[in-house]
Amino acid sequence: MEFLPRIELITVCDEQLLGIRENMHLKFIGSQLIRHGLSLTQNIVVQDDAEEIKDAFLKSWVRSDIIITTGGLGAARINNMREVIGDALGLALEFVPKVQEAINADFQSIGRAVGKRFLRQCYKLHGSEILCNNFGTAPGLWLEHRGKILIMLPGMSSELNPMFNNEVIPRLQDKGLLKPSHGYLQLRTIGIDEGKMEDLLEPIFDKFPGLSINYCLHQGILDIRLSSGIISYSWEDLKKIGIQCQELLQEDFFAFGHETLSDGIFKQLRAMEKTLAIAESCTGGKLADAFTNIPDASKVFVGGVVAYTDQVKINMLDVGPHLIEKFGAVSAEVAIAMATGVAEKFSTSYGLSVTGFAGPSGGTPENPVGTVYIGYYSPSGTWAHKVMFPGQREAVKVRAVNAAFDLMRRKLAQDNFEDFFADCDIEQHLE
Amino acid sequence: MEFLPRIELITVCDEQLLGIRENMHLKFIGSQLIRHGLSLTQNIVVQDDAEEIKDAFLKSWVRSDIIITTGGLGAARINNMREVIGDALGLALEFVPKVQEAINADFQSIGRAVGKRFLRQCYKLHGSEILCNNFGTAPGLWLEHRGKILIMLPGMSSELNPMFNNEVIPRLQDKGLLKPSHGYLQLRTIGIDEGKMEDLLEPIFDKFPGLSINYCLHQGILDIRLSSGIISYSWEDLKKIGIQCQELLQEDFFAFGHETLSDGIFKQLRAMEKTLAIAESCTGGKLADAFTNIPDASKVFVGGVVAYTDQVKINMLDVGPHLIEKFGAVSAEVAIAMATGVAEKFSTSYGLSVTGFAGPSGGTPENPVGTVYIGYYSPSGTWAHKVMFPGQREAVKVRAVNAAFDLMRRKLAQDNFEDFFADCDIEQHLE
Repeated sequence: MEFLPRIELITVCDEQLLGIRENMHLKFIGSQLIRHGLSLTQNIVVQDDAEEIKDAFLKSWVRSDIIITTGGLGAARINNMREVIGDALGLALEFVPKVQEAINADFQSIGRAVGKRFLRQCYKLHGSEILCNNFGTAPGLWLEHRGKILIMLPGMSSELNPMFNNEVIPRLQDKGLLKPSHGYLQLRTIGIDEGKMEDLLEPIFDKFPGLSINYCLHQGILDIRLSSGIISYSWEDLKKIGIQCQELLQEDFFAFGHETLSDGIFKQLRAMEKTLAIAESCTGGKLADAFTNIPDASKVFVGGVVAYTDQVKINMLDVGPHLIEKFGAVSAEVAIAMATGVAEKFSTSYGLSVTGFAGPSGGTPENPVGTVYIGYYSPSGTWAHKVMFPGQREAVKVRAVNAAFDLMRRKLAQDNFEDFFADCDIEQHLE
Repeated sequence: MEFLPRIELITVCDEQLLGIRENMHLKFIGSQLIRHGLSLTQNIVVQDDAEEIKDAFLKSWVRSDIIITTGGLGAARINNMREVIGDALGLALEFVPKVQEAINADFQSIGRAVGKRFLRQCYKLHGSEILCNNFGTAPGLWLEHRGKILIMLPGMSSELNPMFNNEVIPRLQDKGLLKPSHGYLQLRTIGIDEGKMEDLLEPIFDKFPGLSINYCLHQGILDIRLSSGIISYSWEDLKKIGIQCQELLQEDFFAFGHETLSDGIFKQLRAMEKTLAIAESCTGGKLADAFTNIPDASKVFVGGVVAYTDQVKINMLDVGPHLIEKFGAVSAEVAIAMATGVAEKFSTSYGLSVTGFAGPSGGTPENPVGTVYIGYYSPSGTWAHKVMFPGQREAVKVRAVNAAFDLMRRKLAQDNFEDFFADCDIEQHLE
């Protein structure tokens, strides 16, 4: 069995504990490590207080093989991580003249004098190596000590991220700690809940003891990540298992890897040289926004209308006033009229629409807050689909966007049955 | 000195450690606590492994007054937090019939049978109270045990967030743990960088030694949080300092508290009983989306057009083809024509527009990728404003949205000079 080091991340950041700043270090370092077959066991976000840092560090040091710290290396800080950790490990700090020279040169180039406080950045722990910082003045540190590795990184993501990729990953590679294979195989699904999925896939997973399975549910999308776990399955094994899962999941499966619902639609429309327009009420622009996050969206997407009032639906989308009067603005009939109207107005081959009650006010007894109708117009016909979402305004908007793309994806797949399956080629997806 | 409980948050989430999911619990709980004068001392993100959870929990239990856990309460999980923590604290699990009844009723209403695994959600730790979950089946738990408080919350934000506000905060209030005063005073600014701001406000801060000052920069917005720090400044002191800062910051200041740029515009238009329509190209729907995140946005917002092609700008917004030909689609002239066109088409008093190059492709020598023009139409005139943003597609979209709202806010303030300053009343903002 391979050696899997226990890796812990200590993040010193008051702003995260105050809820001001997101923990981008965890997301970045976690996702980088997993690409190389390693994973974090724990992340501790600590207050910027010497005693707190020291206590958390020493507990983590005892149980870990590798500790990564972020933050506390800057010039202006009260608590200097070098001093706190040097104290914890009983290691002296040593002045490094070449760091001072680099800082001097940086400041000279912008015509400013070096502040005294920057001197603190010129020290390293006895026995450690300097990790170059190409985007700031504070260098990182790499220390091998008593069979463990300590990696100290700065707190700014713009400095930390390149330092991690350029300085840390190669050193881990040299120590033989990176696994050459992919870390995991991801399958993306929508329309199936975690319980049903487990029941469905259990017969497959039972055949592969020790296979590591992670589920991640976000806004109606359920991802499954397969990785080798305790028993070492090869990448080829994972792909075979993935394909077996895909077959059982049928249309609820939509991609291997990280492709989004809108990516898939974009690729298909682009391959067919078709265009799309979007009409939306309760999602208020979010549907078009999600589609236009794709680089080159303009190759497929022509435009959209946010129709927040009946009058806009009538004037800008040619929705018949009688439809709104008879069925209400939140109805299958109006959803289809919106999709058809926007496709005709914008001269596109496809139209996608959303109309619903995102809350907190609005809704009717038959269609309470959270009710959303998706409308779809295509060369092969028009469809509407009703969905209901619990939760608050912004959550309903996101779920409705995913539901709209999902309806379109399923309809496109039915139209292009063969193309669809060709498109789901696993290698192509994982590129 | 007041008693400040030590609060730690334990988050059970493999997905966060794998870098798939952001730690939204930390951000939410941290920011909610600070509003009530409490703060988190530590957050530990733990692997979904019984031994790991138990070890982290017990260490945290020893040093904390209040422990909040998130995750591990769902039906389908391998490690059940109730069992792991019951084991750690030596507390038995007790079946709660009323939870089972509620789950049965939930499933009946959607016409499905209750899976066996949902039975696990019907247990509570001996001595604990059930925290109602109005947006899912897994209830939370509140336990007072040996002078400490344990709060167990579900891992889905859509369930956790309302449970925290509706069930946890009132209980902390009942225990007398919330501070009646606000924890910090926040000033929100846009258009000034951190260096300039520090130089500008230094003379004020120098007069208040020990005042705690935190800056947080996000997408062009720079927030300053003032709190009492080592020396105890009263809420009245903080307000006086805040008003001095506001005066120096002038128009770059836009709100006290948590109000967004769009909130401010919404309030002003609503007070004047005016309406708004939006036309956008490179932001692709994000501008309308941001505005429609405001509950009751429909009282002010009529609708929008996402005009991704020249043809849509001409047909749907009445932009003159000669303008596009002469100045280009990304120009001040076209931005103003879009804002004017959408206001006329939608019969609104105000129009706001964005046209630019979000990248990665597009752009011209004069207007490279990242160039954005904002257009504004109002009863008192039309304006355009050019901005340039570094960064990637999605970042450019967000920055452009903030710049558009900022232009509108500044123009509205000039039009309504007196109203504007009345509106900046500190107490009103902080409600």
